Amino acid sequence: MSRLSFRILATDGAARRGEIVTRHGTIQTPVFMPVGTLASVKSLTTDQLQQLGPEIILNNTYHLMLRPGIDLLEQLGGVHRFMNWDRAVLSDSGGFQVFSLSSIRKVREEGVEFRSHIDGSAHFLSPETSISIQQRMGVDIAMAFDECPAYGIAHAEVERSMELTHRWARRSLAARTGESALFGIVQGGIHHDLRKRSAEEIGAIEFDGVAIGGVSVGEPKEEMLDVMRFTAPLLPEDKPRYLMGVGTPEDLLDGVAAGIDMFDCVMPTRNARNGSLFTSLGKVAIKNARYANDQGPLDPNCSCTTCRTVSRAYLRHLYVTGEIAAMVYNTIHNVSFYLDLMRGIRQSIASNSLQAFRDAFLSRVTGGEVDA
Amino acid sequence: MSRLSFRILATDGAARRGEIVTRHGTIQTPVFMPVGTLASVKSLTTDQLQQLGPEIILNNTYHLMLRPGIDLLEQLGGVHRFMNWDRAVLSDSGGFQVFSLSSIRKVREEGVEFRSHIDGSAHFLSPETSISIQQRMGVDIAMAFDECPAYGIAHAEVERSMELTHRWARRSLAARTGESALFGIVQGGIHHDLRKRSAEEIGAIEFDGVAIGGVSVGEPKEEMLDVMRFTAPLLPEDKPRYLMGVGTPEDLLDGVAAGIDMFDCVMPTRNARNGSLFTSLGKVAIKNARYANDQGPLDPNCSCTTCRTVSRAYLRHLYVTGEIAAMVYNTIHNVSFYLDLMRGIRQSIASNSLQAFRDAFLSRVTGGEVDA
Repeated sequence: MSRLSFRILATDGAARRGEIVTRHGTIQTPVFMPVGTLASVKSLTTDQLQQLGPEIILNNTYHLMLRPGIDLLEQLGGVHRFMNWDRAVLSDSGGFQVFSLSSIRKVREEGVEFRSHIDGSAHFLSPETSISIQQRMGVDIAMAFDECPAYGIAHAEVERSMELTHRWARRSLAARTGESALFGIVQGGIHHDLRKRSAEEIGAIEFDGVAIGGVSVGEPKEEMLDVMRFTAPLLPEDKPRYLMGVGTPEDLLDGVAAGIDMFDCVMPTRNARNGSLFTSLGKVAIKNARYANDQGPLDPNCSCTTCRTVSRAYLRHLYVTGEIAAMVYNTIHNVSFYLDLMRGIRQSIASNSLQAFRDAFLSRVTGGEVDA
Repeated sequence: MSRLSFRILATDGAARRGEIVTRHGTIQTPVFMPVGTLASVKSLTTDQLQQLGPEIILNNTYHLMLRPGIDLLEQLGGVHRFMNWDRAVLSDSGGFQVFSLSSIRKVREEGVEFRSHIDGSAHFLSPETSISIQQRMGVDIAMAFDECPAYGIAHAEVERSMELTHRWARRSLAARTGESALFGIVQGGIHHDLRKRSAEEIGAIEFDGVAIGGVSVGEPKEEMLDVMRFTAPLLPEDKPRYLMGVGTPEDLLDGVAAGIDMFDCVMPTRNARNGSLFTSLGKVAIKNARYANDQGPLDPNCSCTTCRTVSRAYLRHLYVTGEIAAMVYNTIHNVSFYLDLMRGIRQSIASNSLQAFRDAFLSRVTGGEVDA
């Protein structure tokens, strides 16, 4: 079979209801990919993750090349076998983490020398090494190696960085020899002229999909949305479009409306560990004393194990006493909430009612209890 | 129905294969009770705990009276409803924790004034308040309020403490008004004469079961075993016998051989969080580098979710990277290991082969890999 195929089943304005076929199953889009940084969606066993039912998750190349290391990971059969996960996996290229986590790094035309944030050991990533590592991980979708410019640097610098990313994109594709599909990444910061050039150049390369990178890097929310709304329509129509590292439930609704097909974000899992829970009635900061005596489910409109089996009072108790089970229950719910949201979004596109779904969602969420 | 009934189905030497009927189901004995300190068996959701299948767990009165507090806990429907657990619960009396966790305490005939180890707030426990709290928790089996003397104090002091425990035992029974069964606790330190007197006095009171307390308080293992072997045969034959806070798999085998029916210990759950795992081939310290490339299951003779789904290499990776899922996987296995051990013990008593089972278990465990 081919590495990846994509077809659009329905549209609603710019929004697309589609299907991506990978070597590890079919993915219904628009899709949210839970983040499994170190080959583990934090706080969940793979068994629990399977019960939640995402069709694809994301793994981080940077983190996995440091621990357990790619030689070992390949020897152990790649990420699927390592974590006993039989559905699709997308890996990032490592580029974003090199720029956000490693404090000592040197960027050359060839690639990036950097030191591990764990033990200071020296490493090198280039288009060729990144693609090689991702292929050895055995992922279904790999990402081109890119440079992610910081927010707030000058236009000329963003342009130079973008041009490097374009050269690296071609080298990434040339380096792809295995069965992993490969997505290109559009850069260009907050500048429309650069985003347009990048969308055209990356869009013209024979990638299996195209991502918008360099967002959620510290810019104000409005600038992220502006970049997303400006860039999405410039991307090829016949390929999956992926908005990297985004975002809140509201962002996902905005992204889908702009024509985005794929999202990933640590927000549901990270917020869960901090006791910040998404519900159909608004956000719940579970530590709040108002929940101490609340015998109701976390979200009356949710059918996850957490909402079916325990009360807000119990979740608050576990959270304030620092029980590990608090993180497990909270993660189950937040991931479930995101997956349910995407299910609702997909149904609404199919029935040409995305706008009504979005309005209803937002009025419920903002009309209800909001802790944070 | 009565609060509790107990019958012996088979014996093998001093060992007893029995059945305890409670208001929340029947318990096959000898039984190991996982510890759910704060109404949570650490690292597990109640859903996961149910899948592991213990017929009874232990909750800590001391911890729950501090957080969430007994008024709230009662209002929320008691521990069963609070944690969504429909099988049996035994609570300790709070006595042990008052003496081991609270640094500021004052023991009088009436009871113990102490300060919370959490926030220094002042509290009072007596036979009457302890039994009242346990009844309001809605537990199936409550424990008499006792004083737990420190290891190494003089005979006269242990004797005075034991006599106080005896007076408190009678007050505990007099205070029991609800549906919870009540067990008495034998004290007496490491002294045979005192243990004998205590076993006789406590054994003569109309409790539903009798426990050996004051062990696992810092004494050498041999002294614990000596107290246990000396005391167990002195306890009433027709009531469940419970050895509190013990112990290793080897201790459980010794205890059962001496005629003990019930055990509890934090060892499987605490060791799991520290990466110390019990297997049928010996102990595994999962952080060891020797497991980095080990694709086998943690325990080839175990059918828990952990052993069925992931490798030692993956468990090591999760542990050394500090992933929360490491604690979940490890706890699932260790609790499963203890429950499987008790199942094997029960079968071996029924078939009059406890000694052979014990010998086979010990030779497998000590003949195999032993990390710690």
